[in-house]
Amino acid sequence: MGWVADAGGLDVEEFVEGGESQKRRTRVSAPDEWLREARADVLFEATSLSVADGQPAIDHIRAALECGAHAITANKGPVVHAYRELSQLAAAKGKKFLFESTVMDGVPIFSLFRDNLPTVELRGFRGILNSTTNVILGGMEVGLSFEESLKKAQQMGVAETDSSHDIDGWDAAAKVAALVTVLMGVPVRLEEIEREGIGRLTGENVRASRAAGQRYKLICRAQRDGARVRASVRPEQVPLSDPMAWVEGTSSIIYFDTDVFPGLAITENNPGLEATAYGMLADFVKAVESDVAGR
Amino acid sequence: MGWVADAGGLDVEEFVEGGESQKRRTRVSAPDEWLREARADVLFEATSLSVADGQPAIDHIRAALECGAHAITANKGPVVHAYRELSQLAAAKGKKFLFESTVMDGVPIFSLFRDNLPTVELRGFRGILNSTTNVILGGMEVGLSFEESLKKAQQMGVAETDSSHDIDGWDAAAKVAALVTVLMGVPVRLEEIEREGIGRLTGENVRASRAAGQRYKLICRAQRDGARVRASVRPEQVPLSDPMAWVEGTSSIIYFDTDVFPGLAITENNPGLEATAYGMLADFVKAVESDVAGR
Repeated sequence: MGWVADAGGLDVEEFVEGGESQKRRTRVSAPDEWLREARADVLFEATSLSVADGQPAIDHIRAALECGAHAITANKGPVVHAYRELSQLAAAKGKKFLFESTVMDGVPIFSLFRDNLPTVELRGFRGILNSTTNVILGGMEVGLSFEESLKKAQQMGVAETDSSHDIDGWDAAAKVAALVTVLMGVPVRLEEIEREGIGRLTGENVRASRAAGQRYKLICRAQRDGARVRASVRPEQVPLSDPMAWVEGTSSIIYFDTDVFPGLAITENNPGLEATAYGMLADFVKAVESDVAGR
Repeated sequence: MGWVADAGGLDVEEFVEGGESQKRRTRVSAPDEWLREARADVLFEATSLSVADGQPAIDHIRAALECGAHAITANKGPVVHAYRELSQLAAAKGKKFLFESTVMDGVPIFSLFRDNLPTVELRGFRGILNSTTNVILGGMEVGLSFEESLKKAQQMGVAETDSSHDIDGWDAAAKVAALVTVLMGVPVRLEEIEREGIGRLTGENVRASRAAGQRYKLICRAQRDGARVRASVRPEQVPLSDPMAWVEGTSSIIYFDTDVFPGLAITENNPGLEATAYGMLADFVKAVESDVAGR
């Protein structure tokens, strides 16, 4: 479709009807041109995730920072594939590259470590970070086959039509890579994360585990190992005495193992769609505050 | 014992031995005089809690702020009894009044809301915030009487010789009052918090509950009710399907009910003594950063 810019802003309804703001518009062909024409202060980047290379989101964010705009994204790709480049570019331009919505919706994970846990060393973490697989496993537990549970999750709007991204563990692995790269300071490539999805599990597997006092969950793990970090995403049978077993539906949980706090956990129960949008709003407030404070 | 000040700092070992730094010392009689002589930049206030009136901690903090020093405390009293006065004084002096260590050791609860959850409204919370009672209830569950379990907790160094402050729910109530006052913006007096301790429970009560699939926990609750906040501290029987039931020993948990995140929980597992000290260190870093940034 291309890009339309107006530094005075666009009235969407009037624009669609071909009114005054359509006449004022400038059609541009690339994000950098668009950013200059629109004189944007902030770019909200929310294209869909390309897990393989993080594009076109990386180009959009690079262009925004080059044009002197803050870049806020809900897209894991730029964090997984270009965190160092984009944060260095942001620092050089005196702008912010923020991405709180990429993990656990908008729950402040990255900003908690950045702002409120000074000097703390993160040794590792474990958690449940993908909703779609958690909903599917829950359906299998109460009697559905894998296919039936997937279909139900799609009807509920939790799972996408092509859910392989979630089912094969790519979404969870991208979140692990983002957390390891940013919070543990060790850039990790997606291929380095041991990854097994839930596609091989049958309803019988899941129900037998439940009957034996355990629950199948797609568990994310990361642990320092010398200068490296070992990370994995795979189905595990979690005993009912572990709070992770009780994380159901679209809820999520993460346990941080740090030097000061050996078990610091954050749980998000039943988030709404606005939680992801909120993460971008909170990033926006941070960016504006940094402008005001001149930092 | 009184106060000893030296703007050049005191070498503790040499001081105790009556060396050079003892000769340089100035003996002063009150905190404000001491703060001026020492030319302190920061006061770490860690006197023991007087739940009734918050003294002498309030006087110390007031004196520090008046002298242009940041005031950092691990003492709930000043937050419960003088939050508004002390924060206004700090703002007027361009200094910080910080108290992260008062609730859940040094886990960043106050700073999470202050720095990273802009525009979010806290509607209420529930949690387990007192370690001593949790350890005692755990001992009763596995066969001890109340008195035996208390004695064991005292031998472990978890409970104090006079543990009535914890057992009667005063410590938990002070934490609730601090959270409600600061995070919900509604000053609440300790007497307004419905409070029942664990002293009436017998080992039989606790074990019967466990056998019936529940666990007694001293639960803190707060909920908005119009312009007011209703708050309570009392023993409740928590079903095993609730993650609160699995918070054992010196661990703690808090669930926040907010407009954006209906169930945001933070759990601290098995903190060490250094966790409380860490909270004061993190506050110190915040205070120094604010000096550097001129905020």
